[in-house]
Formats: sequence, structure tokens, C-alpha cells
Amino acid sequence: MKSLLIHVSKDSLSTALQAVSKAISANSSSRVLSGILIQAQTEGLIITASNIRMTIEYKLPVKRDLVVVHNTGEIVVPARYFYEIIRKLDPGLIRLKIAESLMLNIQSGNTQFRLCGMDAAEFPRIQYIDHPNIQRISMNNTLLKQIFKRVVFAVSSSETRPVLTGVSLQIDRRNIRVVATDGIRLAQHVVESVEDYGAIPLDVVIPGSTLEDLLKILNDDSGSSTELEIGPKQIRFISNGLRVQSALLEGTYPSVNNLIPKAYLSEVIVKTERLLHVVERISILAGESVMLSVLPSHMLSLVSKTAEIGDVKEEIPLEYLEGDHFRAAFNGKYFRDILRAIDSETLRIRFAGKERPLVILPVDASSSTLFLITPVRTHD
Amino acid sequence: MKSLLIHVSKDSLSTALQAVSKAISANSSSRVLSGILIQAQTEGLIITASNIRMTIEYKLPVKRDLVVVHNTGEIVVPARYFYEIIRKLDPGLIRLKIAESLMLNIQSGNTQFRLCGMDAAEFPRIQYIDHPNIQRISMNNTLLKQIFKRVVFAVSSSETRPVLTGVSLQIDRRNIRVVATDGIRLAQHVVESVEDYGAIPLDVVIPGSTLEDLLKILNDDSGSSTELEIGPKQIRFISNGLRVQSALLEGTYPSVNNLIPKAYLSEVIVKTERLLHVVERISILAGESVMLSVLPSHMLSLVSKTAEIGDVKEEIPLEYLEGDHFRAAFNGKYFRDILRAIDSETLRIRFAGKERPLVILPVDASSSTLFLITPVRTHD
Repeated sequence: MKSLLIHVSKDSLSTALQAVSKAISANSSSRVLSGILIQAQTEGLIITASNIRMTIEYKLPVKRDLVVVHNTGEIVVPARYFYEIIRKLDPGLIRLKIAESLMLNIQSGNTQFRLCGMDAAEFPRIQYIDHPNIQRISMNNTLLKQIFKRVVFAVSSSETRPVLTGVSLQIDRRNIRVVATDGIRLAQHVVESVEDYGAIPLDVVIPGSTLEDLLKILNDDSGSSTELEIGPKQIRFISNGLRVQSALLEGTYPSVNNLIPKAYLSEVIVKTERLLHVVERISILAGESVMLSVLPSHMLSLVSKTAEIGDVKEEIPLEYLEGDHFRAAFNGKYFRDILRAIDSETLRIRFAGKERPLVILPVDASSSTLFLITPVRTHD
Repeated sequence: MKSLLIHVSKDSLSTALQAVSKAISANSSSRVLSGILIQAQTEGLIITASNIRMTIEYKLPVKRDLVVVHNTGEIVVPARYFYEIIRKLDPGLIRLKIAESLMLNIQSGNTQFRLCGMDAAEFPRIQYIDHPNIQRISMNNTLLKQIFKRVVFAVSSSETRPVLTGVSLQIDRRNIRVVATDGIRLAQHVVESVEDYGAIPLDVVIPGSTLEDLLKILNDDSGSSTELEIGPKQIRFISNGLRVQSALLEGTYPSVNNLIPKAYLSEVIVKTERLLHVVERISILAGESVMLSVLPSHMLSLVSKTAEIGDVKEEIPLEYLEGDHFRAAFNGKYFRDILRAIDSETLRIRFAGKERPLVILPVDASSSTLFLITPVRTHD
């Protein structure tokens, strides 16, 4: 180990720590994974955190007065302490230095910390090997965030079928399709990219939790883009200084096409925000489910109750009704999650029969998003 | 029970619920105490919550278009549900009505809630009996909040000596004295009021938790004042629509005068905010204690360490030094709490000997506040 010596501004280091913090293992059985890897290289400073599922790396390139590498070297320090120390330092330049073996000196103004470190050789890191089967595509960050944000909420939280805890991503030439489902609800988004991604079709399942984290740390100004490197078992997202590597989920993602009702008996259109407010209120007492009824009075009625606590009902006007009146009961929280993922002003609800899932579609010409929600059986 | 019927604006009701929420029993063995008492009286609407320690009542007087009582009546409803329902309703007037026995209808716009209630007769409420031994004093809210805020953090969190979990309040004519201590640290504030509270000296111990809650809910514009009604076992704080009733702590509060060192060997003055920042940083690694040393270089040095994690040191300049250099170790969190309670720009630290508590005084002519902190024994 060489005697690392760098100067880095508090702001730059905080940005890097913030980004990698999503991968810090809170309760890891491996002591080294509760740490953060600090690497001073000729080109800059690299901060890495890792857990069993994913590794996040943030690179701060050498930059006059902000990131200056005097001596290269590397060390792992306890993440929680290092994060807290940097956060509490005064603004300005911080000097990081390895003076004794496995001991990091952190100095800023009159403050001198010494933090016991661990051997960097034990820390997992992102490999950059060229593998013949690696697929590479580049995607605008706005598009990337938009497609995953619409569906990721619908992944399964149960490990019974691990593949359902992920989002299925399929890319064929210009067509991008993402799907998430837990068996009760389903979210699918299909979009045509401005770019042609080539003839080799891509078909992978990315863990939902990786995508949740990625949505939080990915820069979303429209000028930024992310490179996706997809290997047989892993995916990497590379955007500016950030690299996120995650395991892919194994197993075959179920075909969802036959779940989606092709014909329907009734269709209504309602205002999205109004319906969301109602569902949020109604859900306070949605012990078992929310009952949805389309009334002859051209109103959508929502009713729910919790045994021994109380009940609630509310009606909102329909913007449009085609077909027969209908009623069906749904999980209130699932219904609310779908409404929250819709950003169009109005939405379409299609009813295909008593035992069939309800289809919910944003009324929005530009994209093709579809949500399904399976009814709950009730005794009335 | 009469069939309560009132109209109240969402904002008014939310304000009342917010204030009383501090007294809601989260895990009460009594089902009725997990509720909120709603009373519609000719003069207005009263909302009450209670736990074993204290009762908070908020009165919304009848006011055109904001609080209208059509029928008097009362009911207890589950606090958590009622609070959540009111919070999620659209702005505007809410109608509360008892249509069936023990069932509250809540209506706003197109929304209709029915909430199962409980018998109001079972709910504890604030009594307004005239007792010959009740003492009454009135205090400006700014003064009231200021005196308790300076000391309440220092109460004991242990039930070993219950009287130490409270703040001692002594009033004699114009002199107000508040003290809190847990045996290791002590906070005392003495102030002369503009009012003469009379010849009967007042000497009570108020639970620290009651005061913490009171500081949060009491209006602190300088024009408001609070009436304190002190009975043999209870204290009531009455301010506008708000009434807070709390049990007083029984037992004799220890005399603290002999704990305060009268003479001192050394005195230093330092900048408060600078020292607070340093102590906050230093405390990250203050496993055992923070070592304070006054150095010949006219600097105050702070050092702390956590075994197997690391250590930290920092120096700040002294504004003033009288007497010998000294060093002593303290609980970092306790030291920080004291510094946070000081709002003067500089503070005085007086050292009276190795085993004696350190005296900390704000450098501020207008008030007389004193803090003590007992040193931790160290092996060096």
C-alpha cells in the first residue's frame, strides 16, 4: 500500500459519498462491506461502496483546487464514521492521508481525525473486462428514469418467485419495453427510442431495488446520458463519474401478454388527480378493499370500510362512459400506487368482466403505458 | 347523548388536532385514551386528548363561517383515524354529525366518512373546580418558553429518582428560578419578572416531558400570555383556546446550591458557536469522553477517541484566560446539549479543581443562567 495523500473539497467528497451511500451494507456479515473504499489514482479520487447485490463507484477526476492527488494509494474506512465526519467538517479543502499503515488522517482547518481502516485488497470492486457477450447501449437519462419510474413500484416484494422482484427490460432495435408485476398488479411501458439499438435483442431482469436506488442517484438533466453495459449475469450503469453495477435476476420472466384483456365490456374516463385524492382518502379505511362502482348517474363511486372502525364513500363525475355499469373491489394501496405513477391529466379504466383484471391507461398520446389490477373477491 | 351537529373549517380543526396530538396515548391499556374527545357546546367546539400524565384541551369558539354549532353533543373517536381523515380532506367546511348512537359522520364535499366512536362519559377531562389552595400566576409566553427551554434538556431520563425527571420551578415575588439536573449535569436559570407574583412562595416540580410538549405547542408571539394554575398535585397552563393539565412530580427536589463551586482556579472565555461546532464534530468519535485542555499556547484543545475506530483533536483560540492551565474529561453529548442551550455569543468556563464540576456561564448581562457538568474519570 502506498501512502495516499490527496486534497479534496468538502462539496466534491460529499457528492461522491451521497451517491455511493445507497450501496452501503447496514448489517453486513462481512466487516469490509460496512466500509467505503477510497482510491487515490493518478487521474482522480474514486469512492466505492458495495453490498451483496450491487456496487456503486463515484469518480472525482483531478481538478485544480478541488481534487488534487499528491500520492496514490487506497484504504477502506468505516462508512458510517467517515460519512458523519465529512458531513460535520467546515466547508473547504480536506486533506486525506495515510501516515501509518491502515490509518487514514483526515484534516481540515484545525480539525485532525484519525480513522482506523481496513485492507483495500479485500474490497470488491467493479471490473472492466472486455467480454465478447457484453451488450452496450446508451440512453438519455430523462428517458431512462421515465421508463423505470413508471413500472418499478409494481415489482413483487416477496421472494417466493425471485424473478418477479425485478423489472423485465426488453430492447429490440428502437423498441424498449419494461414490465413489472407481482401477480396482482402489473405495469408495462413501451416506448420507441430515437436511437436504433441494433439487431441483437436484449432481454434481462434488473432487480427492482437497484432501479429504485438508481432513480435517486442518477442526474436527470436532459443533456446527460447513461451507458448500459449488460453481461450474462450483471448490468452496469455508467453516467459521468458514476458507475453502478448490479447482479441481474436469473430465471425466465413470465409472458404477460395473455394476462392483458384484449376486449372490454365498459370503459370510463376520469380525472387522474381527482381520483388519486379520493383513493388516498378512501384508503384510510380500506381494511379489506376499495369497491369501485360505475353508477347510472354517470358517477364513479368508491366505498371502503374497516371492520369495527368505520366506512367511507365518495363519488366523482365521469368524463366519459361507454358500455354497461360495473362494480369490482381492489386493494386500495395497489390502486393508489398505479394512480401515482400516471402523469397524464385523465385516465381510462377498462372493465372486461367480473373476474378479469381492470386495465388502466393514461390518456396521453405520446407513450404507451398500461396498468393491470386484479380484483379482490368480496362477499357481496 | 345528544345528536351533535357542527360545521367547522378544516384549518381550525387541524390546528386543534395538532395541539392535542401530543397527549394521545400511542400504546395505552385503556381503549378510550387512544381516542379524541369531541365536544360541541353552545360556546364552541372542544377537542381533548389525554394520557396518564397529561390532558390537552383545545377550544374553538363559535365563529361565523368557521365554527358553527347546530346541536350540542359529545363523542370519543379513534385518534389516529380521525387525525388522518381530517388531514386528507379537501380544504373547506367539514360537517360533524352524530346520526346513529356512537357513530360520527364526517362529511366534506362529496366525501362521507362514518367513524365508530366510544362513550364520552368514560373520557377523563380537565376539571375547573375552585380549590382554596390553587395558586394562579400569569406569564408572558416568550418568558415562559425561554426559561424552560434553557433547562429542560438537563432533566434525568432515568426513573431511579423520579423527582429528577422534572424541572423545579420556584417563584417568590419577582424572582423566578428553574433548575434541572440528572446528577451529572445541571442547568439553572434565574430571572426577575416585571410582575410581582406575591408573597406566597411557589415551589413545584413539573415533569420534563410535559414541558417539552408545552414548548412545542405554545404560541410564542410576544403578545400572548399563559395563566398557570397550580394545585397541590396538578398544574394547568391556560393560553387562549389551549389548556394543558399535567400531574406534578411528588417528592422534595434536592438543594443544588452546595453543588455549585463558589470559588474557581481558572476561567476561560470562548466563542459559543465555534465551540459547539467543534464539540459536535469531536463527539462523532467520543466513545468514552471528550478531553478538554487549556494549553499554554492560549488555545483550548479538545480530544476524543473511540477504541478500534479512531481519534480526533481540534484546537480553538481562547478569548480570555485567567489562572492556571487545566484539563478534564466530559461526556460529549452532555457538553453539546449545554452549548446548544446557550444563545450568547461567548461563554465562560470556570474550573474549580480536578474532581469538581465545571461551571459554564453565558456571557450575557441580561440573564443569570448557569450550567454544571461533572467530569468523567479517566486513566490518564
